[in-house]
Amino acid sequence: MQATLAGLRVLEIGHFVAAPFCTRLLADLGADVIKIEPKGGDPVRDWGEKVEGRSLWWSMHGRNKRSVTLDLKSDSGREIVKKLSGECDVVVENFRPGQLARLGLAPEALRGVNPRLIVAHISGYGQTGPGRDRAAFGVIGEAIGGLRYLSNHAPGTTDLPPVRVGVSIGDSIAGLYAAFGIMAALWQRDRTGGDGEARTVDVALTESILSMMEGMLPEYGRLGKIKEPMGGGIATAAPSNAYPTRDGSWVLIAANSEPIFARLATLIGKPGWIGAPGYDGNAARVRNVVEIDAAIAGWSRQLDADALIAILTEADIPNSKAYTAKDCAEDEQYLARGMVREVIDPHFGKVTHAGFVPNIMETPGEVRWTGPDIGEHNEDVLGGLLGMSEQEIAALREEGVI
Amino acid sequence: MQATLAGLRVLEIGHFVAAPFCTRLLADLGADVIKIEPKGGDPVRDWGEKVEGRSLWWSMHGRNKRSVTLDLKSDSGREIVKKLSGECDVVVENFRPGQLARLGLAPEALRGVNPRLIVAHISGYGQTGPGRDRAAFGVIGEAIGGLRYLSNHAPGTTDLPPVRVGVSIGDSIAGLYAAFGIMAALWQRDRTGGDGEARTVDVALTESILSMMEGMLPEYGRLGKIKEPMGGGIATAAPSNAYPTRDGSWVLIAANSEPIFARLATLIGKPGWIGAPGYDGNAARVRNVVEIDAAIAGWSRQLDADALIAILTEADIPNSKAYTAKDCAEDEQYLARGMVREVIDPHFGKVTHAGFVPNIMETPGEVRWTGPDIGEHNEDVLGGLLGMSEQEIAALREEGVI
Repeated sequence: MQATLAGLRVLEIGHFVAAPFCTRLLADLGADVIKIEPKGGDPVRDWGEKVEGRSLWWSMHGRNKRSVTLDLKSDSGREIVKKLSGECDVVVENFRPGQLARLGLAPEALRGVNPRLIVAHISGYGQTGPGRDRAAFGVIGEAIGGLRYLSNHAPGTTDLPPVRVGVSIGDSIAGLYAAFGIMAALWQRDRTGGDGEARTVDVALTESILSMMEGMLPEYGRLGKIKEPMGGGIATAAPSNAYPTRDGSWVLIAANSEPIFARLATLIGKPGWIGAPGYDGNAARVRNVVEIDAAIAGWSRQLDADALIAILTEADIPNSKAYTAKDCAEDEQYLARGMVREVIDPHFGKVTHAGFVPNIMETPGEVRWTGPDIGEHNEDVLGGLLGMSEQEIAALREEGVI
Repeated sequence: MQATLAGLRVLEIGHFVAAPFCTRLLADLGADVIKIEPKGGDPVRDWGEKVEGRSLWWSMHGRNKRSVTLDLKSDSGREIVKKLSGECDVVVENFRPGQLARLGLAPEALRGVNPRLIVAHISGYGQTGPGRDRAAFGVIGEAIGGLRYLSNHAPGTTDLPPVRVGVSIGDSIAGLYAAFGIMAALWQRDRTGGDGEARTVDVALTESILSMMEGMLPEYGRLGKIKEPMGGGIATAAPSNAYPTRDGSWVLIAANSEPIFARLATLIGKPGWIGAPGYDGNAARVRNVVEIDAAIAGWSRQLDADALIAILTEADIPNSKAYTAKDCAEDEQYLARGMVREVIDPHFGKVTHAGFVPNIMETPGEVRWTGPDIGEHNEDVLGGLLGMSEQEIAALREEGVI
């Protein structure tokens, strides 16, 4: 069987996180992704920890893609983008709305060459509406999506600000939504009985986050209820939280069903809680959650994480450490499934990569190569795909186009 | 043009969040989704705030799907699932790994009826590996994915636990990954030149989260670096945080570029910072971030949110409130794009729903109907799709199968 996305060719005119994450998902499943970069490279190549000036993240973020440099401000650069669009099924971009159009590369222009082209735009606020031109910052998009307000302790608990989740999760979720939208559009275009039509996929970072907010909008709209942050807990389940350990880590415990709560109450020396008013039934425990959580924390704090986990697991109480990078890298389930894997990068030697989500069991993803050098595939793509001669490519290089 | 996913038929044997979110994304774009429920209904119908005993969230979570009740423990119930598989392109399920197989509904059994069937499994830890049978709880899956550890203040800042982001984001991201994987498998199966093959999509909640962790694994693997939580800030940019207001809300400010920082320094009465050692350049500010954030917070705390935002916007400094449910519901960009919309639900009248992500511009999503009653489409599906007679359906009802 062929790779899941064998036969699909995608042009990325993107940078930073959202569009490159989208195309990496496609490339991981076998699509031929051609990434257009300025001659200085995507700025994300400078992000995070580096070894000998090279970003370790890039090894993964850029994997399985071909890199072609192009000066989009030059006529020849734009001409090449149009020619490449003619050879591709999809273009993915994440400039500010309208910026590609100002360069003469609007969807309509590209569809002059390829009328069936799927175009995916990823932006902060979407391609339409009065707010589309606001500057897009990931942290601000996540705040507008409603995530930041909820990533906090209950009102009145602390003066510390609500937290960021540590990664640009809004960008990655937007990239994933774009990958889904692209495949939906392609299926309708290409299937037997499909409509053969080009479609335009418009993904906003803010909306990608808001779409994850479950019942928040219906509950506000009908009841005026404002969903409030709950710290480590859940508004409707108790006890369920992260509890401290003697050696300074956090262990999640989910003990909100009756039999599990009874086992936990016994463990922490509160057998009198079992069946008692204030502790019997989830609703009573939710009302009493501050006291219950404090008692569990007082107990958990006397144990190191490993001992605590052993005791909880022995008692069949759902639990887990709050995994650090090290815990993730060493987890036996991730390793068994290839979700954590060693990859050879020509610049670094062995590098740890995340594996493939989703796992397509018959034709799983594959690391064919790690993040390429800037313009590593110029000859390959311009010569092999567009049929340019060595002289033509040399001329482009001399003019500074590639 | 037809709806993006017109012509696609999906069988959901799911519950709670992940599988139903996946199928809602497909249904929103026009797929015919048939949801199999026990006669008591999906337990998620009881979650969140209710009006007259009906969950408001369900109005949205169940929209655009057909509901069919089936007792999967009965022979006739299982027979009907097989027949429905013969009429569908895809089956989506999120039971514990192996549970459907124990009911005689393994992918191979369903493919006996429909050899081209795409099957998507969503689970806590995946369909394979030594840990696949662990009980799956959303909060534990998010912890194992690395998200919980990072959703915290810097080590040593507080004794409070790391926070949950307020929603079961791991479930929703897993559902979105499944929707992407399903469409990728369908494209290869159905396109001209495709391979016509059935594929099995295996999505783990833990892995869905880990896949969002950017450079965390490569940086740990090569350098032993453990990514640490940073509260409201970003490890590599300053100032960028959520700052308090006089009226008790939080405003995000992203002022980590030189010109923006200069404008902010002037505003808060610290013009001496501009170009001075310790404040000049992002790297210096990152080292000095505690002092800088404290000064900004000291200033922001003197202003109400509206005034603060007006001043920041006037000075062209990127900012936003940390949106609450109310802010989201009233945001003019969301309203203009239909991302926040009023929908008529037969039980509630007007209900606020989130719109469609991705926005497919030529053939956007549509709310054809809100979350159906339990078994609302029994006759419709069993009669209309499987061709059962009224008598046959009545007999199933009498036997307690539907």
